[in-house]
Amino acid sequence: MTVFFSVAMSLDGFIAPPSMRGILATPEERAQDPRLDRWVGQWMELHAWMFPLRFFRENLKLGDGGEEGRDNNIAKQTYERTGASIMGKRMFDLGEPTWPEEAPFHTPVYVVTHTERDPWERPGGTTFHFVNDGIKSALDQAREAAGTRDVRIAGGAATILEYVNAGLVDEFSIALSPVLLGAGTRLFDGVDESRVALEPIRSEPSPRVTHLTYAVRPR
Amino acid sequence: MTVFFSVAMSLDGFIAPPSMRGILATPEERAQDPRLDRWVGQWMELHAWMFPLRFFRENLKLGDGGEEGRDNNIAKQTYERTGASIMGKRMFDLGEPTWPEEAPFHTPVYVVTHTERDPWERPGGTTFHFVNDGIKSALDQAREAAGTRDVRIAGGAATILEYVNAGLVDEFSIALSPVLLGAGTRLFDGVDESRVALEPIRSEPSPRVTHLTYAVRPR
Repeated sequence: MTVFFSVAMSLDGFIAPPSMRGILATPEERAQDPRLDRWVGQWMELHAWMFPLRFFRENLKLGDGGEEGRDNNIAKQTYERTGASIMGKRMFDLGEPTWPEEAPFHTPVYVVTHTERDPWERPGGTTFHFVNDGIKSALDQAREAAGTRDVRIAGGAATILEYVNAGLVDEFSIALSPVLLGAGTRLFDGVDESRVALEPIRSEPSPRVTHLTYAVRPR
Repeated sequence: MTVFFSVAMSLDGFIAPPSMRGILATPEERAQDPRLDRWVGQWMELHAWMFPLRFFRENLKLGDGGEEGRDNNIAKQTYERTGASIMGKRMFDLGEPTWPEEAPFHTPVYVVTHTERDPWERPGGTTFHFVNDGIKSALDQAREAAGTRDVRIAGGAATILEYVNAGLVDEFSIALSPVLLGAGTRLFDGVDESRVALEPIRSEPSPRVTHLTYAVRPR
């Protein structure tokens, strides 16, 4: 049982373009604001390695076909090893209106939030549980639910970093994209570098990205 | 003839620990300040892949022996392809008191600076030329001096980025170190991401770092 995270990161260290929160209040404003096009364009560039994959198309029911090979194997293994996921409130709020009805997790998902809410069950096996008593409680519940599989800290960056700085992450993978975003959400902004050491586990190049895997060790 | 740079970068995007400039005025202060130990420790971690190499030992005349293999080949090729180097004033000021008498470049080095100074010739083939009329002039002079070999933008980050944003860099390599620095000098801080696109050329893992090479393309 491993606690891990797996994200796509730009070469300049961002896992998301600059936040649009607060800028765009309504769907109409969103549709008209050129910054949204830019946001989506940058997000697509960051994740460009995933879209052609067979696994990606299958998981989102986009139809048959798609590429096989190293990228596909890695995406599939990341999915298959995951018995439960944890995410922060912001990631959930961003995903709630945009995930397909059959949300792409297909496992229990623990949302760390101050909001109280009953579990939200989606078709296809994803149930969102809202945890109000902190990251350790969410991890205990996710471990319990994951059984022999692993727990994935799905995101966003702030939640991942809380777990890293608390010494609760065993391992992580980064798909390093050949992209410079210039601004956005940095994965490691605020990392407690005095307590976190990394041990390289694997570095696997593909034509589109480099898959880097590290174990996290206390310093 | 290629214009390139080659640096070691931490996984969180830094190519140097936080600057000590202005903090430590005198050598006595430096010797006593624990921040210097920390600076040197972090700098050593960032470059840890280089110190055991046969090429590194040879180039700094530290004696025989040292490791061969991929890391060594890459370090050696980077050195051998370089016909002239360019650096900023800060990098020169940091290096002037710390390089060995036989400075490790063994080629002409063009220092972009407002300071006027006669060329400074060192034993072993390194001559520092002080260029007062900007980065393009320095590049013209370096190209001329390099002959059939390549021009390396040696650093620091601000100088590298000036050349990148001016569209004057063809290619670069990063030795991505399994280290988190948390703070320091970011390689890509201020990159003009609207004009710079990257094309992945090579990704070469070694046990200590991943060597990433990209071509720079206009967007």
